[in-house]
Amino acid sequence: MIVSMTDRNETTVNPEPQSLSRRRLLVGSAGALASVSLLGMVPLAKAEEARTLPDYAKWKNQSALIVHSANTMETRRDAIGSGVVTPSTHVFVRNNLPPPSSDIITNADAWNVSFEGVKNPKTLTLAELKKIGVESVTTVLQCSGNGRGFFKHGPGGTQWLVGAAGCVVWTGVPLKDVLKTMGGATAGARYITGTGGEELPAGLDPKTLVVERSVPLVALDTALLAWEMNDEPLPLSNGGPLRLVIPGYYGVNNIKYVKTIAFTANQTDAKIQASGYRIRDVGVKGDPHQPSMWEMNVKSWVTSPLTTASKGRNLIYGVAFGGVHDVTKVEVSVDGGKNWKVARFLGPDLGPYAWRPFVLAADMPAGDYRIVSRATDSKGNVQPPERVENERGYGNNSWKDHGVSVNVA
Amino acid sequence: MIVSMTDRNETTVNPEPQSLSRRRLLVGSAGALASVSLLGMVPLAKAEEARTLPDYAKWKNQSALIVHSANTMETRRDAIGSGVVTPSTHVFVRNNLPPPSSDIITNADAWNVSFEGVKNPKTLTLAELKKIGVESVTTVLQCSGNGRGFFKHGPGGTQWLVGAAGCVVWTGVPLKDVLKTMGGATAGARYITGTGGEELPAGLDPKTLVVERSVPLVALDTALLAWEMNDEPLPLSNGGPLRLVIPGYYGVNNIKYVKTIAFTANQTDAKIQASGYRIRDVGVKGDPHQPSMWEMNVKSWVTSPLTTASKGRNLIYGVAFGGVHDVTKVEVSVDGGKNWKVARFLGPDLGPYAWRPFVLAADMPAGDYRIVSRATDSKGNVQPPERVENERGYGNNSWKDHGVSVNVA
Repeated sequence: MIVSMTDRNETTVNPEPQSLSRRRLLVGSAGALASVSLLGMVPLAKAEEARTLPDYAKWKNQSALIVHSANTMETRRDAIGSGVVTPSTHVFVRNNLPPPSSDIITNADAWNVSFEGVKNPKTLTLAELKKIGVESVTTVLQCSGNGRGFFKHGPGGTQWLVGAAGCVVWTGVPLKDVLKTMGGATAGARYITGTGGEELPAGLDPKTLVVERSVPLVALDTALLAWEMNDEPLPLSNGGPLRLVIPGYYGVNNIKYVKTIAFTANQTDAKIQASGYRIRDVGVKGDPHQPSMWEMNVKSWVTSPLTTASKGRNLIYGVAFGGVHDVTKVEVSVDGGKNWKVARFLGPDLGPYAWRPFVLAADMPAGDYRIVSRATDSKGNVQPPERVENERGYGNNSWKDHGVSVNVA
Repeated sequence: MIVSMTDRNETTVNPEPQSLSRRRLLVGSAGALASVSLLGMVPLAKAEEARTLPDYAKWKNQSALIVHSANTMETRRDAIGSGVVTPSTHVFVRNNLPPPSSDIITNADAWNVSFEGVKNPKTLTLAELKKIGVESVTTVLQCSGNGRGFFKHGPGGTQWLVGAAGCVVWTGVPLKDVLKTMGGATAGARYITGTGGEELPAGLDPKTLVVERSVPLVALDTALLAWEMNDEPLPLSNGGPLRLVIPGYYGVNNIKYVKTIAFTANQTDAKIQASGYRIRDVGVKGDPHQPSMWEMNVKSWVTSPLTTASKGRNLIYGVAFGGVHDVTKVEVSVDGGKNWKVARFLGPDLGPYAWRPFVLAADMPAGDYRIVSRATDSKGNVQPPERVENERGYGNNSWKDHGVSVNVA
């Protein structure tokens, strides 16, 4: 659970590179444990013991998930499957703070959202939002730190491999349609700033804890206030009753339990925006001038086979996506990147923000293979061989890191 | 449960029109009950008492389903939602016979299928099929008797309203790719004949019970042997470990637990094909010259609101599909069909065999409304106002029947 705290407090807990053993030591420190209990979180040792789903996510498929902590659960690589939509029971969970009480789901239509920085500010209930309009969009939801586990410098935070990502269908009202009912944004607005409805522990500066993120106003074209995931009411574990969805942007921008939407001239000074979720060199502290974790990059990985296969014809499966630009090609190599073949996309295209499962048939005599995949998006961006080293281990789309070593016998 | 028996034995139990009370009387007859217990089915009275999901479907969402019997469960109209894909927990169940033991799921890859009427006949395990190829297709799965409950002459069988239908993603190997590995079909083949793996009770003529259906060979273009539904292993309740999927055809042609695929010159003489699932006038017995329940017709229905709404702006939701031809338009009327407006499709287009959720915003002052919807497919087929009266209550796509009366206050 310290892991999650590290994510939240990344600029204060430990700015310099740290090894895994160093982080483990930190778990035992009095200060760290105090913070943990303040947020109602389970210390790492206990989470490791149990590894069971927390109550609010009990309905998820335990065998499809790696339970890192009570607030971080990753989809197993072998449970991603070959379909476009990730079943809700398999969708990863990553909460920056413990979720609000499930009462907010029981009475979902009464949930309300305040709109600020608009000509006619209003507070609307979910029931009222549902009458304004509706659209569905399929997006990859991916944590900024997905792939962090492949970094060698030991960035703090959950050691996600590939499964802090899923592809889901959101249904809700386009934010721009809501904005129209309020006369539009006030002059000078350059950002959409969303605030989550998590309860903040007393006695700490709210700015250091609040989940409040700003994204460029251009995201208004596609932003959705979603009340359904995969055709069912959005569950608490994934941000229900209402979540701000910014297609093609990293998960953290998709504000759960969204309570306030503000059209602002500047980015919020909340820590999670000002210094958190920033790309910077290893050892450097976060600050507002560094790139923010907004648009996702082009990425793919193999989902099967992962360790062994039987000799002869094999189907190699994976998923590929392009962030804000649709993925147009994915290549697969079974010899670690020396030779590539273009794979075939599998199933329907659910739009530019969805991932596309892919498949390639390969004849594989007995032996050892390194299977890697490399995606290209419609702007010509190609998944790179190497990761971009960065302090927090964000945005890893290295095709080398995401390869698998498979023994065929 | 008698209801299901009636479906199976439609030509012998009661060829003439029968009222509901007549059917209820039959339940009490010794002969009927004997047949029931022979098939391990629960008599109607008991099923009505319980209305709980049978063990093999316990994982489904009880509150989303109307449990007609242990082998027939319908999705509630208010649980269909506004998404393209029906969550597996909501997908209807309709078994002609009780399903095989769940052992066949535990050891799914060992399931085998025999191929006959091919140049090089083979029996392949599911593991072997998975190496031949893979494709995903999204289809509406709909029982032939969906909408039977709207017929006035009282056709026997489950009184389905709208929810013996769902839209799901299938993943499996194209049947044509499997056929290629066997040198193609033998000369003169005109039908694909699939046989289900249900256990047949001893002492009865298997031909009267076996779930064996023939479809025209043209279906080979799109037929799939599917091992996944909605990206998860196909559950027993919906035909797992392996189901023959014929996109655009009524459910009965999508053989569950498929054990044999034969390429045949003629349709099977199994009762379910020869006299069952045939469109004929009320009072007429089934025979092979009548139209078989193959391709589905164009259809739509409203899913919300269903009974009441609040005055002012309302979003009217529904689903529409075209069977083998993609649906291209759906119109909605709030005055019982006097005036129509074109609705907007919602969410991604998952291909010609998928349904499309639709939505129309309507300003509705207080009053009583009759909301109806009318779909058109790409061939210009329009959903008709009236149902085609027929003995068994099949193929109902009347837009009048599928309308809803809504009080707005």
